[in-house]
Amino acid sequence: MAAREARRGARPVDLSASDFRKLFAEVTNWDRWRQRPEVGALHFITAERIAAAAGLVRRGVTVSLGRPLNTEAGIDNPEPARHEMTMLPDVDIGLGSLRFTKDYIGVDYHNEGHSHIDALCHVAYEGRLYGGLPDAKVTSRGAAAGAIGLLCDGLVGRGVLLDIPRVRGVRWLEPGDHVFPGDLDAAERAQGVSVEAGDILLVRTGHARRQSDLAPWDTSTRKAGLHPSVARFVAERRVAALGSDGNNDTAPSTTEGVAFPIHVLAINAMGIHLLDYLQFEDVVPLCEAAKRWEFLFVAAPLRIVGGTGSPVNPIAIL
Amino acid sequence: MAAREARRGARPVDLSASDFRKLFAEVTNWDRWRQRPEVGALHFITAERIAAAAGLVRRGVTVSLGRPLNTEAGIDNPEPARHEMTMLPDVDIGLGSLRFTKDYIGVDYHNEGHSHIDALCHVAYEGRLYGGLPDAKVTSRGAAAGAIGLLCDGLVGRGVLLDIPRVRGVRWLEPGDHVFPGDLDAAERAQGVSVEAGDILLVRTGHARRQSDLAPWDTSTRKAGLHPSVARFVAERRVAALGSDGNNDTAPSTTEGVAFPIHVLAINAMGIHLLDYLQFEDVVPLCEAAKRWEFLFVAAPLRIVGGTGSPVNPIAIL
Amino acid sequence: MAAREARRGARPVDLSASDFRKLFAEVTNWDRWRQRPEVGALHFITAERIAAAAGLVRRGVTVSLGRPLNTEAGIDNPEPARHEMTMLPDVDIGLGSLRFTKDYIGVDYHNEGHSHIDALCHVAYEGRLYGGLPDAKVTSRGAAAGAIGLLCDGLVGRGVLLDIPRVRGVRWLEPGDHVFPGDLDAAERAQGVSVEAGDILLVRTGHARRQSDLAPWDTSTRKAGLHPSVARFVAERRVAALGSDGNNDTAPSTTEGVAFPIHVLAINAMGIHLLDYLQFEDVVPLCEAAKRWEFLFVAAPLRIVGGTGSPVNPIAIL
Amino acid sequence: MAAREARRGARPVDLSASDFRKLFAEVTNWDRWRQRPEVGALHFITAERIAAAAGLVRRGVTVSLGRPLNTEAGIDNPEPARHEMTMLPDVDIGLGSLRFTKDYIGVDYHNEGHSHIDALCHVAYEGRLYGGLPDAKVTSRGAAAGAIGLLCDGLVGRGVLLDIPRVRGVRWLEPGDHVFPGDLDAAERAQGVSVEAGDILLVRTGHARRQSDLAPWDTSTRKAGLHPSVARFVAERRVAALGSDGNNDTAPSTTEGVAFPIHVLAINAMGIHLLDYLQFEDVVPLCEAAKRWEFLFVAAPLRIVGGTGSPVNPIAIL
Repeated sequence: MAAREARRGARPVDLSASDFRKLFAEVTNWDRWRQRPEVGALHFITAERIAAAAGLVRRGVTVSLGRPLNTEAGIDNPEPARHEMTMLPDVDIGLGSLRFTKDYIGVDYHNEGHSHIDALCHVAYEGRLYGGLPDAKVTSRGAAAGAIGLLCDGLVGRGVLLDIPRVRGVRWLEPGDHVFPGDLDAAERAQGVSVEAGDILLVRTGHARRQSDLAPWDTSTRKAGLHPSVARFVAERRVAALGSDGNNDTAPSTTEGVAFPIHVLAINAMGIHLLDYLQFEDVVPLCEAAKRWEFLFVAAPLRIVGGTGSPVNPIAIL
Repeated sequence: MAAREARRGARPVDLSASDFRKLFAEVTNWDRWRQRPEVGALHFITAERIAAAAGLVRRGVTVSLGRPLNTEAGIDNPEPARHEMTMLPDVDIGLGSLRFTKDYIGVDYHNEGHSHIDALCHVAYEGRLYGGLPDAKVTSRGAAAGAIGLLCDGLVGRGVLLDIPRVRGVRWLEPGDHVFPGDLDAAERAQGVSVEAGDILLVRTGHARRQSDLAPWDTSTRKAGLHPSVARFVAERRVAALGSDGNNDTAPSTTEGVAFPIHVLAINAMGIHLLDYLQFEDVVPLCEAAKRWEFLFVAAPLRIVGGTGSPVNPIAIL
Repeated sequence: MAAREARRGARPVDLSASDFRKLFAEVTNWDRWRQRPEVGALHFITAERIAAAAGLVRRGVTVSLGRPLNTEAGIDNPEPARHEMTMLPDVDIGLGSLRFTKDYIGVDYHNEGHSHIDALCHVAYEGRLYGGLPDAKVTSRGAAAGAIGLLCDGLVGRGVLLDIPRVRGVRWLEPGDHVFPGDLDAAERAQGVSVEAGDILLVRTGHARRQSDLAPWDTSTRKAGLHPSVARFVAERRVAALGSDGNNDTAPSTTEGVAFPIHVLAINAMGIHLLDYLQFEDVVPLCEAAKRWEFLFVAAPLRIVGGTGSPVNPIAIL
Repeated sequence: MAAREARRGARPVDLSASDFRKLFAEVTNWDRWRQRPEVGALHFITAERIAAAAGLVRRGVTVSLGRPLNTEAGIDNPEPARHEMTMLPDVDIGLGSLRFTKDYIGVDYHNEGHSHIDALCHVAYEGRLYGGLPDAKVTSRGAAAGAIGLLCDGLVGRGVLLDIPRVRGVRWLEPGDHVFPGDLDAAERAQGVSVEAGDILLVRTGHARRQSDLAPWDTSTRKAGLHPSVARFVAERRVAALGSDGNNDTAPSTTEGVAFPIHVLAINAMGIHLLDYLQFEDVVPLCEAAKRWEFLFVAAPLRIVGGTGSPVNPIAIL
């Protein structure tokens, strides 16, 4: 770990502002599709690929890729979910011995630590949303473009999990460390899987594992994530959606002047929905046992009209 | 319709309290399973059946069975969902030209009109939850038994949709009308499908359609649903979960002293999770086109610790 | 009542757009104060006047001018308050026989039917807030000008109640009817009170009484309120704050092109905080008994940083 | 400070369980009043005393005794308030150039750091509420006894502030330190004021000052407060309500088996409403300047039906 720390220490910024601008231009696909350009990389998910992904189901086992909603405020949970019991069996509701229990759930889900999906309107960069639309499309009434409604019928396809700590032989990547394109290549080889067009690419950094094993820390300022150069990999492979156990970005950023380069490149330049703060601790043993790192992936965002994303509990079906 | 109205008028109660008690005893399965008795009818969903359900996917088309979250109070939406934009591009957040949009979503989802799933702890009857556990297991801290966590890995299996208005040749069932076991048999024959062990049975009454076509009314007191005698059908076929476009129960109830007989019989006696206030308007044309009324069904409840259910957006994959 | 209805019917618009513009210019006081211009008409409340108002207390009786928070959605309550019990005595919290009860309260208080105060930032007109500040001062982060914090130390002064139904000899003003300056003059004479500089002027239309006596109706489109010409009265008397049992404005508006003329004139032109949806049903009998329609008035807005107002429970001390 | 720390260290428990039981019995007043026994110590606030308190107003200055609502989670704010802008000027709402700004405010106010008042139902001890009522009176529907509605017309009376750090010559009391009856006596003498029947007694420990001056700490486990023996002082003086800049109790407790002895003694035994997490930093300079530590005190709880208290912004009028 020392060498890596030293390496990071040696280059707090490894992507200059102009390099980032070039990278942005290189991967931008705003003009790629004539029909429904607003759905972006979801175009890569064709009906054929969904049907093929369903064909990956062998054992009939399902497993969550989401975290329990965390209702306790903490240094790594600054905006806890609200969960209140709203009806208990203590009240005679005039229905004889019949009683109901109810609860309220609410969450400002884009915040640190909540498993969620980012709609394309979640990121505005230089005044524009994905596709070049003005960011004024998002108002206090909700998003009039790039809203989560694009995924009202679910995000379904082949999920491919690349486990970076596994291929590096560590328990987790340390905060500030990056996943580089070479890590993804190495993981593909080690796992015998290849990321292809339309895939939902899931990258494990071990962030969730580190959180469960160590004392809480300020994850908003220190976490492992994808290096911006991964955007090229993602573009070349025609990835449809991207998820991680962190928020996909490394903190702190090593890109000059851009705090969340992966968010900008994936969402804003490429129209790729991001899945943040997933956990792969439950699916990893199943993958290891089956020696297969691909599965049918289903995420079903809540139908939030004008929403900028949704809390989600994605399911892997193996 | 007149004859049916007359029939209902003639017998406001068609199931006496003692008959209900007998029916409850007949379908109760509290002692059926030695292992993990608390999951109830989920036992019927085996890995083999999940794998087989995945094999139903042909076209690779996905479609939502949920409704958009309704944030406007109304006579049919007494507890609207809350949706607030919590960050807009109007604010310089110190990240240069990078801006984020965020929102908060919250809902007391068991109420009228919200697509949701009922956990087994949602219903207490005569002081007991499913399995005979004391209802004091559900406290202001949440449910210590029968919570939605039983479905943390999703509710996945074969979905079978029985379309009652279709077989009856009407647009929808009128409020107060029941779906009887004979309707289910008739729909099976007409659609060429058979409800089998482990199925997620979805019954269309046309309630959602009636709501979209007519002026709002007080749906809490007047809606079509399943007659309690349907519980025998459900038990015999070993249905794993049950969903409808209403809340599964007919309002008003025609069972003496029990306002929600299907809730009591399905959840409390049989350990069957209910899916309420779904909509089948989008899946029906796909089923008609394919002449198939079965599909891979995936519902992914939020991971609400101690929750009594969850808002859901179930996905059908055909 | 027939004559009045006819009168309203005869002139759906009684203030033209240009007349409104003149009235706005006439009452605007943006340049009146050199020091702390942003507090507007609060300047009229001097320490001397507060001390004098305290001197009005004779009997030592206190009474609420607010409504209970309404948690049930209805045609006159489209955004109900949220009230959830968050801790009950049912849970052993590890403190022996000691238990606590807690609850959560939340409200989007500016909506129909909630007793609240409007901060000066609540109204933007032609792109400007009170004082001519750009409305962009209010962002998704809160209000950077005209926020409720101006009243962090409370709104305290002489409250004067003018009871219009009393002087007109009716139970309430019908929806759509206006309180005219002549009504205020007549009420002053009948009640033996005179509105003076620094007063918190409270105008009873009987709206709350009508709501409690009749079936609910869509109050957002039909309610009694102040005619825009009342703005002159308010300006001349140097009123510091203005409250009513409706929302001060008449619905529907009879001003061409301006749906809420009193909101615009009072808040935007004159820097007058408005108190909406109060109730005077409890204070009226005390005033009648004492033959005094003035009292010490205290409203204590919650300290919402950047807030556009606050739910309030104003107290009259007689 | 060392001596005091040592003293605390030497006696982690200084009130045995049996001594507490005796003290509870000694101060209990459940049978004191025949008429409206449920309002408890509010009986001490008579109309005469309210009128007399109004007579204390000299300068006409008002000042808040509340804290701004804190929306940022932290170690001393585990349940932050929610504040969301729900309407901004960015949206054309179909009213021409007229725009409104709105916001939602919500808070689980009994938690650490929020200025609030405890209703009498907030504390259950040995299964009973104040007056001996069963704690089952508080259900998921709200409190059917001891609710905040007892104060719907406000808590108004003479406020007397005793500044303990001032009389001790320290900036604040350290966490874990107690205010003893002798401290109150000393403060009365030093300030030239005497606590009398019907007073709202406010005790400054300096907790809020310590929070603003030092780094955040876990205030739930470490804060200064009143020693249980203060209950005798409170009973003898016939105090009507009690407030502090902490939550009135010392943490950790030095009473055997009772974590919040002041809450139990004041609320449960004596029917005294508590005001928690106030701040006196703004009123202190005014008191010092006027050499007067008494004023008209007005707190106006929100009208939460069945509520266990309310967030408050109490106002002192001097």
